[in-house]
Amino acid sequence: MSTNGTNAILLIHCPDQPGIISSVTQFLADYQGNVVDLDEHVDRDHNVFFMRVEWEMENFGISKEDLPDYFRENYADRYNMKWELYFTSKKPRMALFVTKLSHNLFDVLGRQQSGDWNVEIPLMISNHEHLRDIADRFDIPFHYIPITKENKKEQEKRQLELLKENQIDFIVLARYMQILSSDFIGYYTNKIINIHHSFLPAFPGAKPYHSAFDRGVKIIGATSHYVTSDLDAGPIIEQDVVRVSHKDSVKTLIRKGQDLEKIVLSRAIYAHLQRKVLVFNNKTVVFD
Amino acid sequence: MSTNGTNAILLIHCPDQPGIISSVTQFLADYQGNVVDLDEHVDRDHNVFFMRVEWEMENFGISKEDLPDYFRENYADRYNMKWELYFTSKKPRMALFVTKLSHNLFDVLGRQQSGDWNVEIPLMISNHEHLRDIADRFDIPFHYIPITKENKKEQEKRQLELLKENQIDFIVLARYMQILSSDFIGYYTNKIINIHHSFLPAFPGAKPYHSAFDRGVKIIGATSHYVTSDLDAGPIIEQDVVRVSHKDSVKTLIRKGQDLEKIVLSRAIYAHLQRKVLVFNNKTVVFD
Amino acid sequence: MSTNGTNAILLIHCPDQPGIISSVTQFLADYQGNVVDLDEHVDRDHNVFFMRVEWEMENFGISKEDLPDYFRENYADRYNMKWELYFTSKKPRMALFVTKLSHNLFDVLGRQQSGDWNVEIPLMISNHEHLRDIADRFDIPFHYIPITKENKKEQEKRQLELLKENQIDFIVLARYMQILSSDFIGYYTNKIINIHHSFLPAFPGAKPYHSAFDRGVKIIGATSHYVTSDLDAGPIIEQDVVRVSHKDSVKTLIRKGQDLEKIVLSRAIYAHLQRKVLVFNNKTVVFD
Amino acid sequence: MSTNGTNAILLIHCPDQPGIISSVTQFLADYQGNVVDLDEHVDRDHNVFFMRVEWEMENFGISKEDLPDYFRENYADRYNMKWELYFTSKKPRMALFVTKLSHNLFDVLGRQQSGDWNVEIPLMISNHEHLRDIADRFDIPFHYIPITKENKKEQEKRQLELLKENQIDFIVLARYMQILSSDFIGYYTNKIINIHHSFLPAFPGAKPYHSAFDRGVKIIGATSHYVTSDLDAGPIIEQDVVRVSHKDSVKTLIRKGQDLEKIVLSRAIYAHLQRKVLVFNNKTVVFD
Repeated sequence: MSTNGTNAILLIHCPDQPGIISSVTQFLADYQGNVVDLDEHVDRDHNVFFMRVEWEMENFGISKEDLPDYFRENYADRYNMKWELYFTSKKPRMALFVTKLSHNLFDVLGRQQSGDWNVEIPLMISNHEHLRDIADRFDIPFHYIPITKENKKEQEKRQLELLKENQIDFIVLARYMQILSSDFIGYYTNKIINIHHSFLPAFPGAKPYHSAFDRGVKIIGATSHYVTSDLDAGPIIEQDVVRVSHKDSVKTLIRKGQDLEKIVLSRAIYAHLQRKVLVFNNKTVVFD
Repeated sequence: MSTNGTNAILLIHCPDQPGIISSVTQFLADYQGNVVDLDEHVDRDHNVFFMRVEWEMENFGISKEDLPDYFRENYADRYNMKWELYFTSKKPRMALFVTKLSHNLFDVLGRQQSGDWNVEIPLMISNHEHLRDIADRFDIPFHYIPITKENKKEQEKRQLELLKENQIDFIVLARYMQILSSDFIGYYTNKIINIHHSFLPAFPGAKPYHSAFDRGVKIIGATSHYVTSDLDAGPIIEQDVVRVSHKDSVKTLIRKGQDLEKIVLSRAIYAHLQRKVLVFNNKTVVFD
Repeated sequence: MSTNGTNAILLIHCPDQPGIISSVTQFLADYQGNVVDLDEHVDRDHNVFFMRVEWEMENFGISKEDLPDYFRENYADRYNMKWELYFTSKKPRMALFVTKLSHNLFDVLGRQQSGDWNVEIPLMISNHEHLRDIADRFDIPFHYIPITKENKKEQEKRQLELLKENQIDFIVLARYMQILSSDFIGYYTNKIINIHHSFLPAFPGAKPYHSAFDRGVKIIGATSHYVTSDLDAGPIIEQDVVRVSHKDSVKTLIRKGQDLEKIVLSRAIYAHLQRKVLVFNNKTVVFD
Repeated sequence: MSTNGTNAILLIHCPDQPGIISSVTQFLADYQGNVVDLDEHVDRDHNVFFMRVEWEMENFGISKEDLPDYFRENYADRYNMKWELYFTSKKPRMALFVTKLSHNLFDVLGRQQSGDWNVEIPLMISNHEHLRDIADRFDIPFHYIPITKENKKEQEKRQLELLKENQIDFIVLARYMQILSSDFIGYYTNKIINIHHSFLPAFPGAKPYHSAFDRGVKIIGATSHYVTSDLDAGPIIEQDVVRVSHKDSVKTLIRKGQDLEKIVLSRAIYAHLQRKVLVFNNKTVVFD
């Protein structure tokens, strides 16, 4: 396979020590890797080094096939790195989980359809039939998997099978109104992106707009985060807010908040697709 | 006393019913009250009507002295109103409570000194000596009243005496690091303005910047509210936020947050001085 | 026709004088009009009074048919009012003009389809074929009307015929890349909503993201306004901004800006649909 | 002189080529320079590399005295770098130019006085006497240098002498209402920081709040930039905005805008003090 036009993206984190940047950039220079983007960050509290580097594979002196082993033996092991390697020639495959609300769904589908995002969406999964019509309009296979307290375990098994069959890389919960089990989450660590309709950690759980209204806040927010088994407490990827006032009712808070939810979830997905998010210690590094 | 240049400001809230606005505006029209500003709001959940109206006293057909009785008998009692009446000729008197941090203090003093605010500051009270020098530079009497667990009750009594002697109308806690007793608060209901260095209800209590850092939020905030006996849970007057990232340390969160604290507290004080804040049900109506 | 569930919305502006609010609210009270929303504003520089009042028609003592004449004779003429009267039972009809970019289009269609907006979209008009497929997916008739310098006059005539046939109330230019003639605009005064991809009045005209990049601004914006014959200078309905930095390229400015364009245009359309926008002196009053 | 606690800060820009980061970081590693902060940026349109690196001088293998020559000979010349080298042990010296408005002045002085900023302010220069009292309160020598069309050249000469005598490193125009001559500016290239009270490039020149009011914008802004001979067109360091509405008068725009001016100017000064601003091609790189 030709690597024309393909970029490699390397994500690293490891204990900080002098010489890491120098080593990695020297390595790329030695093999004629034209660096397109380089970001690094040092967490000085925990003494951890983070790096994302993207370079062109055309003319690079090591093949896509040999690169993982080469990098592991010569660098990753030496610096005790956690690392991920991606090639832009491989389109990520995303599953969409939804329930009844369509605002996030339309926003995500519009971006994919317009070609703004480099992503495949091979399936939608829902515990309700409400949004099947939208899936049909966008030609995306729709799987209705209703959930009850009794059948949850077995239905999650069905979901997992579908995800596996479709070689899903990551999952987006676009206002999916079910809590995933720890077992399920364990299969997709830092690969399930949720949108919560509040400025976390304020108003976790159910009905945050009602709580915001009752508390009389002057600003509301939305938060996109990776799902962990601790409800609404996973690593935050992106947040945004909008000003409100005493004039707002719960209804107008919901309307204003849904605009936030759309933008915040889509920004988080985009950062994930660009491989710009690293997770450490239940927090994210999001390069921009 | 001449009422040239004096405005009257009337704040009302009462059960909503047809005809209130019509009654009040007709009353002002009948007595040649030139309305400078009129704001109203209806809380449709609780069926409560709120109004702020400001008019010129010059040429008004009822004197400042007679106005309260006249209004009570003809309107307030009829509509079962809670109401407050202010005249702009009377300068509000504010007490400043501080501890060690000076950013809010400088901001407040600068605004008063420049004449942007129509306010007297007859005294500062502090449980530490750190900021006496600033009080001196601005010619404001500084009272050092240290607080310990043992002497708190008696020291609050001293504070209350000072406030009374100085005919204080309202109190601003400009990063005053002591919790006021319920007794103390009871003397100044909806007249003590605090600045909390987080986006409430997220991170109440101590060290919110540290908590924000630990949680990995992407936006931090500040909140100004009236003090109630429920810590950091009083009616919110104003909030604002600023974007942060993984690059921020606790130290830079503090630096960025202090800019928010300054602006948010000063906006809240200004709204209070303009008599634009009404409190109902632990929430505020802030007219703008 | 029953008026159950129908609200009336009255928009007024006129020279300010004492007693207008009192008159109008008394009139509604007299005929048992239950006021749902009342907003007023006085432009003290030009001494102009603005009002929007919405009330329930059920049980109202004057019929929809008689209301216009009654109001004109008893109030509008007396106060020299400009006024508009709407009933929520009549769904506004919107035409969408597009060219090649789809982000605003998807956002508008998603909101209509989900039922968030009370609006009919009987047709799309475009000078390119690119977005026909999206129109098809949403079952909206698509009219391809290419424009050249030579045929512009005659093609605008075709557009106007289509708008008339479809009884269009207002037009949304969702990144329509043609300048409308003054003649065309004259038929839809304050009824054509445009989205411009800059923070006007900065960067009017073509390629604002390139200009923003060249100037090195730290914040970019988007502006929705009514179209007048003066390019990008019509009354502004809504604006919003997002922070950028030296790291942004023209390409990332465009990506970040498109999110603004979506939200800003949709907020403007929503305000227009709610009849919350009044125009005076090339500026808007937007009640919220 | 001991270098205990002293950091070195190196700012670089040069034509981009592979190996620069690697070279510089290797150099610091070789001489035991503990890197505290490293930021780099590549402008891919102009192929320019930017870098800011800060490291501890304690234990560093090259003395402060030898470092400039060593760096020039071994690195700067090789890569054709423009570079600046600072040591944190040397406190920058700032001159404040003011006229009549005090809001920026109080904000700047409060930050210096509280110790938040590492800066000396040896003098204030003003073309009016209005703010002398504030200078006195903060013990800063105040120089009254009135300017007329006739005496401008000679008065600027006096200003320059004062700046030289006081070994001023950079100048802050805190709402100084005079246009500096090109000659004057030439002595302090990228060392004069101005605050303009609009969201540039919108509303350059005089009375921007009046222009914003007349145009009916929904958001106003403030811009801090380095002064060049092209009025209000120098490299932008920082901008911020606040939402306004039809309710705002020119007076309230000014009040809200002044809060922006304070924060924006102070953020720009702080970035300059931290040596985080690089200028290229009339634009800034501001590391954060």
